Amino acid sequence: MSAPAQLTAVLEAGGPELSRQLHRTEARLSEVAEGHGAELARHASGTLAAGGKRLRPVLVFLSGGAADGLLPAAVAVELLHMATLVHDDVLDQAALRRGRATVFAGGGRRAATATGDLLFSRAFAELAATGQEAAVSALSTASSALARGELMQRADAWSDHVPPERYLERCELKTASLFSEACRLGALLGEAGAGAEAALAGFGRRIGLAFQILDDVLDVSGPVERTGKQRGADLLDGTVTLPLIVARARDSELRAMDLRSLVTEPAQAAAVCDRIAMSGALGVAREEALHQVAEAKAALSGVELPERRRRALNLLADGVVERYA
Amino acid sequence: MSAPAQLTAVLEAGGPELSRQLHRTEARLSEVAEGHGAELARHASGTLAAGGKRLRPVLVFLSGGAADGLLPAAVAVELLHMATLVHDDVLDQAALRRGRATVFAGGGRRAATATGDLLFSRAFAELAATGQEAAVSALSTASSALARGELMQRADAWSDHVPPERYLERCELKTASLFSEACRLGALLGEAGAGAEAALAGFGRRIGLAFQILDDVLDVSGPVERTGKQRGADLLDGTVTLPLIVARARDSELRAMDLRSLVTEPAQAAAVCDRIAMSGALGVAREEALHQVAEAKAALSGVELPERRRRALNLLADGVVERYA
Repeated sequence: MSAPAQLTAVLEAGGPELSRQLHRTEARLSEVAEGHGAELARHASGTLAAGGKRLRPVLVFLSGGAADGLLPAAVAVELLHMATLVHDDVLDQAALRRGRATVFAGGGRRAATATGDLLFSRAFAELAATGQEAAVSALSTASSALARGELMQRADAWSDHVPPERYLERCELKTASLFSEACRLGALLGEAGAGAEAALAGFGRRIGLAFQILDDVLDVSGPVERTGKQRGADLLDGTVTLPLIVARARDSELRAMDLRSLVTEPAQAAAVCDRIAMSGALGVAREEALHQVAEAKAALSGVELPERRRRALNLLADGVVERYA
Repeated sequence: MSAPAQLTAVLEAGGPELSRQLHRTEARLSEVAEGHGAELARHASGTLAAGGKRLRPVLVFLSGGAADGLLPAAVAVELLHMATLVHDDVLDQAALRRGRATVFAGGGRRAATATGDLLFSRAFAELAATGQEAAVSALSTASSALARGELMQRADAWSDHVPPERYLERCELKTASLFSEACRLGALLGEAGAGAEAALAGFGRRIGLAFQILDDVLDVSGPVERTGKQRGADLLDGTVTLPLIVARARDSELRAMDLRSLVTEPAQAAAVCDRIAMSGALGVAREEALHQVAEAKAALSGVELPERRRRALNLLADGVVERYA
C-alpha cells in the first residue's frame, strides 16, 4: 500500500474528529507562518503549505482524543519537525523538498537558518501557551534528542565501527524521540487514562524506530520515483545505516573497502546500493522494522483506548513499514 | 573605561550576592554542556568555558534580586545567546571566537548547526523546569525576535532604502529583545515589586538598542586590537547600519555608490570605514546610543529597587556605551 493510501486508511479510522483536528492544525500553522513578520511569511509559507503527511500531529491527536488542549501540541511538534527540515536543507544545500523550492534555495543560508530558528521558537511558544511544564519539557526532550542524533551521526560518519546498537540509539535520538514525545504530549494534554502516558510514548518510540529503519532501507532500494531522492544519499554523506552495517558483516569485500573512498560521487552510489541489496541486508533491516512495529502494537494493547483510535494507531504503525512496499 | 573594567564596577556594585549567582550560573552551564552526550560536551564545552561577559544573566539577577528561582532564567538566556553565536559562526565560517576555535572550525557545519539547536533546546528545558508559562513565553518571544532580526537583516542586505526607523526595528529584534526579556524574566521570577516588570523590560530594551548601535559604531571605528574583528565586516556582508545610513545622507558621493560593489574585499572595507568616519556619522550614532542609555536610566528611576541593584544597573547601562571609549 502506498503512503497516501495508508494515511487515508488512518484518517478514515480516525473519523471526522481527526479530520477536523487536522484542518485546525493546518489553519494554525498558516497563522504562525503569517503572523511573525513579512520575511517569515515569505520564507515559511511555502514550506508549511507544502504539507507532508502530518504524521506527528496525527500521533498527538490519536494519543489524546478529542480534547481541545491538543491543538498547540500538534502544531508544536509539526513546527519542530519543519524547523529541522529547513536546517537540513541548508546543510544538504537542497533545492527542492516535496516538489517546492526550499527556503535555502529561495533565501540563502542565512535566511534559511534563521527561518528554522524561528519555527523552532514558535514551537515552544505554542506549547508555552498551554501553561503545562510537562508539555514544554516533552518538547525540549524531543528537540534536544534531534540535535544529539545529528551530532552522533556526524561523529559516526564514514566509521567502520558502528554496531547495530549504536545505530538504533541514533535512530532513537534523531527520529523516534519526536514520535514518542508526540504521543506523550497527546497523553498529557488529552483524554488518555492514567498510566497510558508511558505506554503511548513507548508505542511512538517503536514506530519512530521502524520509520527511520525503513527510511534507511528506501535510501538503498528506491524506487527513486517514489522516494523522490536519489539512491545512496546516505552513502554519499557518510551516514552509516543498518543496511550498510549488515551488508558489510555479510560481504567481506564490502567490509574491506574504505567507506570514505567507496562512494565519492552519485554515479558510484547506485552500484554500492545494488551490492548492499544483493547481500540480503535489506531483508534483515525490514525484519527489524517489522519487529519494532510488532512491539509498538504490543505496547498499545495494554492501553485503554476507544476502539476507533486503537485501530487508527495500529494502521499507522503498519503504514510506517508498508511505504512503497 | 574598558569593557572588563566596566563589568568589574557592575560586579562590585552588585555585591557578593551577584558574584555567587554568577558562579552558580557558570556551574550550571558546565553541567548542561557535559550532561547531554559526549558530542555536545566536546563541541560546546569550549564555547561555554570561553566565557564572555555574561551580560544577559547579570541583567536577570540585577532585575530579580536574590530569589532562588532566577538561576534557570539566567542559564536560559545565556544558552540562547550562545546558540545564536554558534549558528552565526557557521554562517560567517568563523574560525575563532574569543580566541578559541569555534564549534564550526572544530566540528564542521553540521555539528555546529546541531550544537546550536541543542543549546537552544536546553535553554527552553531550563525554563520549563520553572513551571512558569510567562517565563517560557518570554524566552520564546526573545528567540523569535532574534530570528526575525536576522531575517530582516538579510532582506535589507545592500539596500539603499533602509531608514533609521527600520534599522532601529532590526536592532530591537536582533539584540534588544533578549536584553529586554532577560530583565522581564528577572522581574517575573524574582523579587521585583508589582509593576516593575514593564519598566525593567523597557530598561533592558533601551540598553540593548544602545549596545547594538555601539557594536555597529565599533565595526566602523575599531580599534581592531580591542574589538578582535576587522573593520567593516558589516560592509562586507551587506549589513546596513546606522553609521552607514547617516554617512550616506551626508556624503553624496557615498550615496551615489552602489553598496554591493562598494566593498567586495576586506582591503576596501577600511577605506570606506574611514570615509564613514569623516562624515561625522559615528558621532551621530554614538549620540543615539547615549540617548537610549539616558532613556533606559529614566525608565529605571520609576522602579522600586534596592539602591545596590539600581546602582549596578545604571553602571551597566553606562558601560554599554563606554566600551573601548
